[in-house]
Amino acid sequence: MSTDRVGGYVAVMRRDADETRRRLLRAARDEFAEFGLAGARVDRIASAARASKPLLYTYFGNKDQLFDAVYNTLIADIVSDVPLDATDLPGYAGLLYDQSIAHPELVRMTLWDRLERAGQGARQPGVREANRTKVAAIQRAQDDQRLSDRIPAADLLLLITTTAAMWAFAQLGPDGTGSEQTDQARATLTEAIRILTGAP
Amino acid sequence: MSTDRVGGYVAVMRRDADETRRRLLRAARDEFAEFGLAGARVDRIASAARASKPLLYTYFGNKDQLFDAVYNTLIADIVSDVPLDATDLPGYAGLLYDQSIAHPELVRMTLWDRLERAGQGARQPGVREANRTKVAAIQRAQDDQRLSDRIPAADLLLLITTTAAMWAFAQLGPDGTGSEQTDQARATLTEAIRILTGAP
Repeated sequence: MSTDRVGGYVAVMRRDADETRRRLLRAARDEFAEFGLAGARVDRIASAARASKPLLYTYFGNKDQLFDAVYNTLIADIVSDVPLDATDLPGYAGLLYDQSIAHPELVRMTLWDRLERAGQGARQPGVREANRTKVAAIQRAQDDQRLSDRIPAADLLLLITTTAAMWAFAQLGPDGTGSEQTDQARATLTEAIRILTGAP
Repeated sequence: MSTDRVGGYVAVMRRDADETRRRLLRAARDEFAEFGLAGARVDRIASAARASKPLLYTYFGNKDQLFDAVYNTLIADIVSDVPLDATDLPGYAGLLYDQSIAHPELVRMTLWDRLERAGQGARQPGVREANRTKVAAIQRAQDDQRLSDRIPAADLLLLITTTAAMWAFAQLGPDGTGSEQTDQARATLTEAIRILTGAP
């Protein structure tokens, strides 16, 4: 083969590997969200992703590390999909709520992580870093008196994210779909965060 | 045997049965709180309660019904241990927080119930009735203008109980014990509920 053809072949292999990796992450997300860490079956994940179990282990290590990889991906997604505006925290809570209704996987995985792994996923460097950036933004708004400082910045962020996520989770019906009450529930949530943050 | 002796014998048997039932409920609470419904093992519960598996099934039906029985007992306990005072909701949140730090079993079982059983335990008649009584007390305080009505009574109760429980759950260390931060966290929680309810 010419150097060009070898280069092209390597590029195709790399692209296929990336796609397989993504399929595995998606399949693992669905499996972990539904069954948790102990209940998840690695062979179901591999089969849903049309990949082999040995390949899954090569890419991600073990089931525990795969859980962390999925969790990190979901946190990165929500950080980019729902940017924090420290001067509109009720709006931020509303968007977090919408995301949690549309994609309950992050809420479910956060709860499984807390119940089964004592919050190991939430202590990963990527997750902590995402958190630090948001706390700093809230702290700046409090320092500039654009936001009440009755609740310390880190606590305020945790209160808002926990409340938005659990509020959405409580609205989801037994089949995991949203009920007809979700618009009213969303309005109640943003009103609660408005009161809590002293927003006009 | 004389009638007296038979009566005494029946009373002793009944007392023993009640004690066995209580031991089974306690053992089941610890097992379900730690491992959830799918992960719990009925033989571990029976053995921890020094009872037989057939006796467990005779008393409680199946594993699912045992979960509901434990959940109902925990709700009845918290309702009697933490009475609601609609004019002091920050205080109520603080006591719920204390209970959740001291006995994380109810928070854990509520989360397992939601993740594994779509909230079936929380929809039991006894649990709903306990809830209705509290919502009515909040509603009366709102009607008498002893409490702000910016948040509807049922939503306000759900916000307070969820926040108090999740706040306590977030403070518990990986080994399930409270951290040294719990007093500060408790103060933050009651302050948040004070702001939310417009309490002085």
